[in-house]
Amino acid sequence: MSFAHRHLLGIEPLHPSEITTLLDLADKYAEQNRKPDKHGSALKGLTQINMFFENSTRTQASFEIAGKRLGADVMNMAMQASSIKKGETLIDTAMTLNAMHPDLLVVRHPQSGAVDLLAEKVNCAVLNAGDGRHEHPTQALLDGLTIRRAKGRLHRLSIAICGDIAHSRVARSNIMLLGKMENRIRLIAPPTLMPSGIGEFGVEVFDNMEEGLKDVDVVMMLRLQKERMDGGFIPSEREYYHRYGLDAEKLSHAKPDAIVMHPGPMNRGVEIDGTLADDINRSVIQDQVEMGVAVRMAAMDLLAQNLAESRK
Amino acid sequence: MSFAHRHLLGIEPLHPSEITTLLDLADKYAEQNRKPDKHGSALKGLTQINMFFENSTRTQASFEIAGKRLGADVMNMAMQASSIKKGETLIDTAMTLNAMHPDLLVVRHPQSGAVDLLAEKVNCAVLNAGDGRHEHPTQALLDGLTIRRAKGRLHRLSIAICGDIAHSRVARSNIMLLGKMENRIRLIAPPTLMPSGIGEFGVEVFDNMEEGLKDVDVVMMLRLQKERMDGGFIPSEREYYHRYGLDAEKLSHAKPDAIVMHPGPMNRGVEIDGTLADDINRSVIQDQVEMGVAVRMAAMDLLAQNLAESRK
Amino acid sequence: MSFAHRHLLGIEPLHPSEITTLLDLADKYAEQNRKPDKHGSALKGLTQINMFFENSTRTQASFEIAGKRLGADVMNMAMQASSIKKGETLIDTAMTLNAMHPDLLVVRHPQSGAVDLLAEKVNCAVLNAGDGRHEHPTQALLDGLTIRRAKGRLHRLSIAICGDIAHSRVARSNIMLLGKMENRIRLIAPPTLMPSGIGEFGVEVFDNMEEGLKDVDVVMMLRLQKERMDGGFIPSEREYYHRYGLDAEKLSHAKPDAIVMHPGPMNRGVEIDGTLADDINRSVIQDQVEMGVAVRMAAMDLLAQNLAESRK
Repeated sequence: MSFAHRHLLGIEPLHPSEITTLLDLADKYAEQNRKPDKHGSALKGLTQINMFFENSTRTQASFEIAGKRLGADVMNMAMQASSIKKGETLIDTAMTLNAMHPDLLVVRHPQSGAVDLLAEKVNCAVLNAGDGRHEHPTQALLDGLTIRRAKGRLHRLSIAICGDIAHSRVARSNIMLLGKMENRIRLIAPPTLMPSGIGEFGVEVFDNMEEGLKDVDVVMMLRLQKERMDGGFIPSEREYYHRYGLDAEKLSHAKPDAIVMHPGPMNRGVEIDGTLADDINRSVIQDQVEMGVAVRMAAMDLLAQNLAESRK
Repeated sequence: MSFAHRHLLGIEPLHPSEITTLLDLADKYAEQNRKPDKHGSALKGLTQINMFFENSTRTQASFEIAGKRLGADVMNMAMQASSIKKGETLIDTAMTLNAMHPDLLVVRHPQSGAVDLLAEKVNCAVLNAGDGRHEHPTQALLDGLTIRRAKGRLHRLSIAICGDIAHSRVARSNIMLLGKMENRIRLIAPPTLMPSGIGEFGVEVFDNMEEGLKDVDVVMMLRLQKERMDGGFIPSEREYYHRYGLDAEKLSHAKPDAIVMHPGPMNRGVEIDGTLADDINRSVIQDQVEMGVAVRMAAMDLLAQNLAESRK
Repeated sequence: MSFAHRHLLGIEPLHPSEITTLLDLADKYAEQNRKPDKHGSALKGLTQINMFFENSTRTQASFEIAGKRLGADVMNMAMQASSIKKGETLIDTAMTLNAMHPDLLVVRHPQSGAVDLLAEKVNCAVLNAGDGRHEHPTQALLDGLTIRRAKGRLHRLSIAICGDIAHSRVARSNIMLLGKMENRIRLIAPPTLMPSGIGEFGVEVFDNMEEGLKDVDVVMMLRLQKERMDGGFIPSEREYYHRYGLDAEKLSHAKPDAIVMHPGPMNRGVEIDGTLADDINRSVIQDQVEMGVAVRMAAMDLLAQNLAESRK
């Protein structure tokens, strides 16, 4: 089996060949999604439950569309409005859902490690849709697929990740994925938003956009995670944009054909100039969203295959 | 093609023959919906997303049932609880969903014109489920179908629209539809709830129910849109009911077989007497709801056909 | 017909043979739910609407999974966020949904009797998913099925129901079901949480766990319904646990093979010791959840058959 995992909890445990297997399958689903009849049957008869303990329109919608397109019975649980209020623990909630025999459990949770903990307790395949500052594996995979389609390869590229790295599970999962695929990674952030000791991961560190973006192939901007900043120094949005927001001038230091990425939702005029974000010659932000559905279809398809195998 | 539109944004751009085409198809779906197995396949393999920026149980449920009965993969996005909070713009949200390749986007928005703006940006068919004070085309179409089934025709009828006309997109879409189909339209409202210059639309204007209802075939009551009244004069509910609420006495001025309509949800004892609303000999209020599902099935079917045609 | 009802509003109207019919069918669905492809077609082409006027993750999820697994088009209406706010009455809301031709309406409501009232007004089959302090029939049925599978029979057992009996529709439905099936029922509660006059139901009443649990086959714990206690005496959680919380010591008074039940969500350390709740040798709490889906599939299947019969 070329993808030998029961769950998709993070990028960390994946072998580079497994990443390639998943992206190859996602590429096929990306083509299928552009056809009039997008409906497949890889998940037919299976039950997918989306448990989102944090709101996320785009990620939840992406997983929901992915599951429905493959024929799963999909259920959304808005966990804030649920029995969490009645004092039930995460594990009790998970065990309850587990007893209903779901096959795929998609979980987003504000605490790092919560999804791993949950995966130990259930019988089905668990997909991490983002846990605290830990991992967001499908985001890194969709970013990888977007880069591979735009650049023709996903190795030996020079890639800058810019902005609020300290609070970002997107950055963390991407650093691991892009590192495994043997790319050169540059991190650009104000010192207060750069995690300490990050140099150990084999990345180059900058606090200046002009230097950091020099000759890169890919510029990956991050969202300012204001909701996760607890008391530390927060730059004014205007000052932040002036120094770290991506605009045409700063982008001119990158390679002439460098692509611009953002995981969304964007704060226009804070992390990125709105015109640049919409420039289809440079920005692949919409492609990222499109690849998100394809990557999630591929991930659920592979996990469902492993699940079927394990039940034989 | 007898329905030559990519979107259903309003009644304004529709030709009378297109209205008839849509109502004829809706009539068929109305019959199908009364059968035990209501499931069709006109939208099989397609993805329908309901984006409601305003809550609406009945309209959202109606579109959701319509889509599911025709085999679509239907997703609801509760947009208030979503990344709108994170500062994303309407267009960014729309572009994000668009990148997921939906085929049908059903949108309700509190601002007039927002749905038209959105339709310019996406590749799929957009259905306006109500935008500000502008249009609510499926409501006018379901009202038209209800009248046609009750009266045997949808032309040369005398129809009174009564109540809070100033704040009502339902009134606006109905005035256009009923006018295109060559009916005589009478508007009845207190002066503060009557839009200025409305006489230009070829309607007769009254501020007195007894005069306005004289010999009409159809009495269409409107909801008091208290949530849209910003600071202007609001009559007390008791005073309003006394002068403009529909009861048996006021209805006696209409034709003996006049039908009573209300788009719901009703404020009983404010706009309409509760007993009259429930009188199945006069009230077609439940028929309106029933025709709503049928009209939405027809609208999505026609738009999906045009979409398929455009993709060839 | 072995299950002669149009609705499932409570346990009260059911004949013991009807309970057996339903549990026999649920047993089959329980086996089907453990297979990889869980999808059936008993509700194919039918429309199921879940109207929850109170939040409930587990019950709503259970009904939703049950319906989707049987091929229904399932819709969830979060009624708090809906037009209730606009002043619409329960009956108007029900009539509106009824006009959309649903086949199955699953209703939870905070007021006792609300679901019965609603069932009188609609053309479809109504399932009570809990109304006030009145009934919660599918909970009693899933408890009955869990007991029958664990004990090999559902009659001549000695069963203790413990805790907040006064506020519990779960207790009420269970007392009726277990009584109809000819079991001995013991109720254990502090005097303030024991309904007056309950002795008339042919049950034994205790205010002491050690005495009440003596030699029982089944220990059914209840949730402390703090949200339903209006001003009366509420014991401290610590005091409550000391006297009425189930732990290994108190359980030692029951039969050595007595099973432990709880309808969830649990307040660990209040009603029940967490370790005991997780002890798979004694606790059947996860089985209850699993049987919940099966019982709801069986109930909707039987009602849909009766509906089809009535339409011939």
